[in-house]
Amino acid sequence: MASRVHIGILGAGTVGGAVHDLIVNGHLARFGVDAEVVKVYTRTPEGKPRYGTSPELFTTDPYEVTGHPDADIVVEVLGASGPDDLCAQKDWVVDALRNGKSVVTANKALLVAHGDEIWTTARECNQAVRFEACVGGGIPIIGPLTQSLSAERPAAVYGLVNGTSNYILTEMAQRGRSYGDALASAQALGYAEADPDADVGGRDAEAKLLLLASITFGARLEPGAIHRKGIERIHAIDFLYAARKGRGTIKSVALARNAGGALEAMVTPMVVPDDHFIARIDGVTNAVFFKGEVSDGGSPDAGDWDYVFVGPGAGGGATAVAVLGDVHELVARSGDTPFLPVESIVSGVSSVRPEDDLRASFYVRFVVRDQSGIVGEICQVFGDKQINVSEIWQLEHTEEELESLVGAGKGGAASDEILPFVITLEETSVGQLRQALERIAQKDFVLAEPLWLPVWRA
Amino acid sequence: MASRVHIGILGAGTVGGAVHDLIVNGHLARFGVDAEVVKVYTRTPEGKPRYGTSPELFTTDPYEVTGHPDADIVVEVLGASGPDDLCAQKDWVVDALRNGKSVVTANKALLVAHGDEIWTTARECNQAVRFEACVGGGIPIIGPLTQSLSAERPAAVYGLVNGTSNYILTEMAQRGRSYGDALASAQALGYAEADPDADVGGRDAEAKLLLLASITFGARLEPGAIHRKGIERIHAIDFLYAARKGRGTIKSVALARNAGGALEAMVTPMVVPDDHFIARIDGVTNAVFFKGEVSDGGSPDAGDWDYVFVGPGAGGGATAVAVLGDVHELVARSGDTPFLPVESIVSGVSSVRPEDDLRASFYVRFVVRDQSGIVGEICQVFGDKQINVSEIWQLEHTEEELESLVGAGKGGAASDEILPFVITLEETSVGQLRQALERIAQKDFVLAEPLWLPVWRA
Repeated sequence: MASRVHIGILGAGTVGGAVHDLIVNGHLARFGVDAEVVKVYTRTPEGKPRYGTSPELFTTDPYEVTGHPDADIVVEVLGASGPDDLCAQKDWVVDALRNGKSVVTANKALLVAHGDEIWTTARECNQAVRFEACVGGGIPIIGPLTQSLSAERPAAVYGLVNGTSNYILTEMAQRGRSYGDALASAQALGYAEADPDADVGGRDAEAKLLLLASITFGARLEPGAIHRKGIERIHAIDFLYAARKGRGTIKSVALARNAGGALEAMVTPMVVPDDHFIARIDGVTNAVFFKGEVSDGGSPDAGDWDYVFVGPGAGGGATAVAVLGDVHELVARSGDTPFLPVESIVSGVSSVRPEDDLRASFYVRFVVRDQSGIVGEICQVFGDKQINVSEIWQLEHTEEELESLVGAGKGGAASDEILPFVITLEETSVGQLRQALERIAQKDFVLAEPLWLPVWRA
Repeated sequence: MASRVHIGILGAGTVGGAVHDLIVNGHLARFGVDAEVVKVYTRTPEGKPRYGTSPELFTTDPYEVTGHPDADIVVEVLGASGPDDLCAQKDWVVDALRNGKSVVTANKALLVAHGDEIWTTARECNQAVRFEACVGGGIPIIGPLTQSLSAERPAAVYGLVNGTSNYILTEMAQRGRSYGDALASAQALGYAEADPDADVGGRDAEAKLLLLASITFGARLEPGAIHRKGIERIHAIDFLYAARKGRGTIKSVALARNAGGALEAMVTPMVVPDDHFIARIDGVTNAVFFKGEVSDGGSPDAGDWDYVFVGPGAGGGATAVAVLGDVHELVARSGDTPFLPVESIVSGVSSVRPEDDLRASFYVRFVVRDQSGIVGEICQVFGDKQINVSEIWQLEHTEEELESLVGAGKGGAASDEILPFVITLEETSVGQLRQALERIAQKDFVLAEPLWLPVWRA
């Protein structure tokens, strides 16, 4: 049963180092795969003691890896970088494929930016590209969805796929911390980058959702087709409204679903009910939910999901395990070409719904200067746009909460003039809601841009 | 990319019918597999309208399936039965392998009873046997553990793998129902068999754990090596003690872990802390937890797990999806022989710990005739056996609760003489505990056999 495989690695950072360690320590031998690292590309070969006494293993020329005569598989773990870096990395991956090597990558930014060229090349060269580590970090997602559950008919795939955002929202929900305070903790703990925009702004989750939707629905989504909203404007009081009035909490959800043949895709904080399983996934943990048309597991959440996969969304060890799972898969499938022909996956989806046509119920939090007739004025705008108001929520607030809502100098309102409240709306479209909110924003009593979030439905 | 595959099916019950439906409705075509059913064995071909106008599809001779000249894969979905049936089913599977067909089975009882002969035959014939549907029903478990996570070093695998037991315990915990009442509900809802012994007694979970341990640790466990306890003696008051004094609940856990090179395996109700993820898996839902040495996901449960797989543990549709996932896997790996060489899986486990040597902290619930000096007498027995008492818990009880604890006529104790209480013990072995409890059982103040449960630790 033992199979031999030779591996070249592009990258010697946290993940690359862990991949190397696991191979050298025989972790793939467990199931009969005898693996060997033949070459490692890094820009900085010096000061990497974990690689032991093999300095000749290193090269500063990536083409010595992608063209190595002994390498069967090239592992690309170069981490996210700017457009120029991604362009160079794409050239290296394409070179590896043209040289008859399969590729395993953990670089989701690369696949999002240059996926078309990489898939086309893989097909031309009859080579595989695998990317389990690009979605949900270490959690097995692509294998289960494309193999074990391949006979399902997908209805929806969604989850919490950015650990930094989920950590921040969990801290805000459970400890009443402010966004800035929770973000600072995330940075201190090493969860968030110095520049956390890709995490908290939803771009990291968006890239994962693009890949997840492609393997689930065979849909090629462009980043612009996804309704994306970050968590930066969530305020501590939003958790109070969600909990006390809505019996729920707020989670940043990446979601793709088949809505009557049209694919809906969004990455946005949502108000989710407390008794939904997704509300119980806390901290940096990631989770991916899958709902199909065949399985009926009697899940407690009223059929919102059939399967959930939970685990570490990041970390060198977990990511390296996912990368080596792909290597193992390639070895086990020798002679086969398991690249994913995205456009040929049958899923019952025939179109992608534009962002403005996405439909949901909504939570809208207003901050206004307290004066009579405001609620009436706002409801009239919604009425004009055929949007039905469902509930209106008000809570008591501390002076501190009120002042932090409007920021410095906003309208010069004294704290006893600041009135926050929440209006929940029956199902409407993002486009209709935006138009209504644009009109409301022109009213002089509005002290802060209204925050609007979808309310969960599967 | 399209691959053609011809399938023979042994069985036309709920699962067999669902497998047939999914194939006929093109569910495997999603990822480019063109499948066709060539023959179906059933004892009762009449009255199966779902198979449409193809009565020639049926045979009452299983060897017409296992020896069908066109069949590439034989799917065996004949459900659990007695020893004679299992013996016959084994003969059919062996015949299929000898005829050069791969086998996919959903029959865990078959693998537990005749696994050795089946694996040996598969190896001799260079054919595959796959069994994703045998562990965790529809949840992808074997694929993720043996492929995606193959580079991990397993430390523990555990979970809730019997939906009936978990439904009953959930009802008792959340609604204060009695065991008998919750069991009756499970039967009325179709979760529990008319003869529920295999479920509530832990034998179903034991069979799943045998398979789970084999693919995780490469360990051949015999049923006798697993410490097994059913849920029949759990009483409503045990949930009160677990919740009010132990801040936890009771779940029937199937667990295998590497304890310093020795494998520990058990299926038993355990007291689990409320804030552990396993306490939040309710109803018939199944969940399998995996803990490795490499991944560190910062899971909220103090490193008790890295990955969790949640989903339907049963149901015709989900089971059929799992079976067809295996079929897909076999097609994708054509030319490979992915049978599982259990004895060659490297996992750091070198022995199996005998049941008496299993170690845990324990919850022991006593029911005694109230008189002075009892706690002292009991503690003295524990002391003699070098077992340290950790806590003693007492709650107020209703007359009804007290009487239901001792049953009719037990010692003729009036309800105000019945005293239940719980002693928790520091870590000790099952053997030591049993010896102590045997001595305590001889005391004349003991009104009911003490109930002892391990307290959770990973």
